[in-house]
Amino acid sequence: MEKIRIGIVGYGNLGRGVECAIRQNPDMELAGIFTRRDPAAIKPLTPGAKVQSVSVLDEKQDIDVLILCSGSATELPVQTPKFAAMYNVVDSFDNHHNIPQHFANVDAAAKVGGTVAAISIGWDPGLFSLTRALATVALPNGENYTFWGRGVSQGHSNAIRRIDGVLDARQYTVPVESAVEAVRSGQHPQLSTRQKHTRECYVVAAEGADKEKIRQTIINMPDYFADYDTTVSFITQEELDRDHKGLPHGGSVIRSGRTGWNDETDQVVEFKLNLGSNPEFTSCILAAYARAVFRLAKEGQSGCRTIFDIPLAYACALSPEEMRKELL
Amino acid sequence: MEKIRIGIVGYGNLGRGVECAIRQNPDMELAGIFTRRDPAAIKPLTPGAKVQSVSVLDEKQDIDVLILCSGSATELPVQTPKFAAMYNVVDSFDNHHNIPQHFANVDAAAKVGGTVAAISIGWDPGLFSLTRALATVALPNGENYTFWGRGVSQGHSNAIRRIDGVLDARQYTVPVESAVEAVRSGQHPQLSTRQKHTRECYVVAAEGADKEKIRQTIINMPDYFADYDTTVSFITQEELDRDHKGLPHGGSVIRSGRTGWNDETDQVVEFKLNLGSNPEFTSCILAAYARAVFRLAKEGQSGCRTIFDIPLAYACALSPEEMRKELL
Repeated sequence: MEKIRIGIVGYGNLGRGVECAIRQNPDMELAGIFTRRDPAAIKPLTPGAKVQSVSVLDEKQDIDVLILCSGSATELPVQTPKFAAMYNVVDSFDNHHNIPQHFANVDAAAKVGGTVAAISIGWDPGLFSLTRALATVALPNGENYTFWGRGVSQGHSNAIRRIDGVLDARQYTVPVESAVEAVRSGQHPQLSTRQKHTRECYVVAAEGADKEKIRQTIINMPDYFADYDTTVSFITQEELDRDHKGLPHGGSVIRSGRTGWNDETDQVVEFKLNLGSNPEFTSCILAAYARAVFRLAKEGQSGCRTIFDIPLAYACALSPEEMRKELL
Repeated sequence: MEKIRIGIVGYGNLGRGVECAIRQNPDMELAGIFTRRDPAAIKPLTPGAKVQSVSVLDEKQDIDVLILCSGSATELPVQTPKFAAMYNVVDSFDNHHNIPQHFANVDAAAKVGGTVAAISIGWDPGLFSLTRALATVALPNGENYTFWGRGVSQGHSNAIRRIDGVLDARQYTVPVESAVEAVRSGQHPQLSTRQKHTRECYVVAAEGADKEKIRQTIINMPDYFADYDTTVSFITQEELDRDHKGLPHGGSVIRSGRTGWNDETDQVVEFKLNLGSNPEFTSCILAAYARAVFRLAKEGQSGCRTIFDIPLAYACALSPEEMRKELL
């Protein structure tokens, strides 16, 4: 079997997750890891894996698909169009507001390059998006609700770490269970930001730091915390390392709608994730859609795609015949 | 806006559900209802809707997509290939074991006819299949579990009705909650048929009938009940009509898998339906995939498709730009 040669760009939690995912997919192989850091400082999990500077990609390498494991804030908006001009690429761009612009940039680059790019692949955006669309298609007369958590938000954890006197922090986003239950039972409540999620913060303060001031800074931080009921607990670095080391996450997409001639019938669709590791799960989806991108490119297609545009069969290791027999 | 002209073949619960679904989708219109019964005996919900004998379809009618609302046991295996030779069609063929053969028959007919056919569209097969595949794609190292219910099985209800001395019956398939919880918690239990579902039967017996004999006949019926823990309750026709009139259903597809370099991380994916009406929900999916079939045919495609082969964007009333903006 000819294996799909995957390149990993960026070797953080997501990049390591992709490396693990490649190991679980026998039709893929790791062609190389590409980093902006000093390649010698990176110790890959895969024995014999080659780590090189990201700059070597400027000269066309023998790679079928590049999986871009960089951040959505500043890196992917530049990297994805740049690499799409030369390589088939997959990214997990998750800045919902900027997706239309990112799509346009990547689509233009991929069309010129004759490559296929899949953007915003992961679980949200990604599987959650697919479920929102699937449920909307199924129940035109209804409403979508998305709840995240219980899980670690790295963006919120970092926001706390930037506060003066904070050494380390972990922030959990927690769905309000009564709100989830109301939606799940077929009600269509109007829910404010505060009514949907709470935020739990575990903070390691520097010796002598003013804890009450840190607490006030957190709970009043605009965008991040001010619109939520937020609890702040001060713990030691040892406690944080022992009890809050993982990156669990998850959540639910629920659509509740009505069918029947007079909209008399309640129907509820729910998709739920309970993830031991957020980046490892995202990585698995990225790897699967690298397979889809590889197959689309083989067919001579080019341009940018989202999870809405790609038939699931392209992402699946099984043949269409096997899928019909075993999964339909 | 040019509307998609839908023809409904078969006017039972599913056909009426499709009629309701067309009303909820402003880009569709009911082109006609086609029945094997006496057309005059059918009173459609849609004012002015035309009801004709199914035989008029032998001469090409002005219809974009036929939605076939007949039974999978004997009707669809004949009807779907027959109509696919002349019309774009969608069916909800749900005999899992015979899907490969049905696909081959319909594909051959549609290719000759230059039409597009989507088979096995609904929730299982259908949305549940899509989730099984999606979860398998995401977690190659894992296991799928499907639980059905609590919901009415019409096949099992009919099997009870055929017993001597039974006037009417309703059978509920009920998932064993402890099994669902075990799977949901990330365990990978080996579950026998008996450990996954129980069956609840509500039976109206004829006056003077031997109830104990009926009960024994039910619980020992091969395939239908013998492998399950089955309870039988005798009730009056009034009670059945009052308390068991609806056709609720639902269930869960759960895949539990492991990720990480040493498969050390638990990840659980669940898709859950809580349906006030099984046929009305199935009908909604059929209508949405009629849109997809219409668009695929417009592109000049032909042949048989399953839910794995069709990008979700084709089934969605929103444009790709709107989908990216609102649902991604």
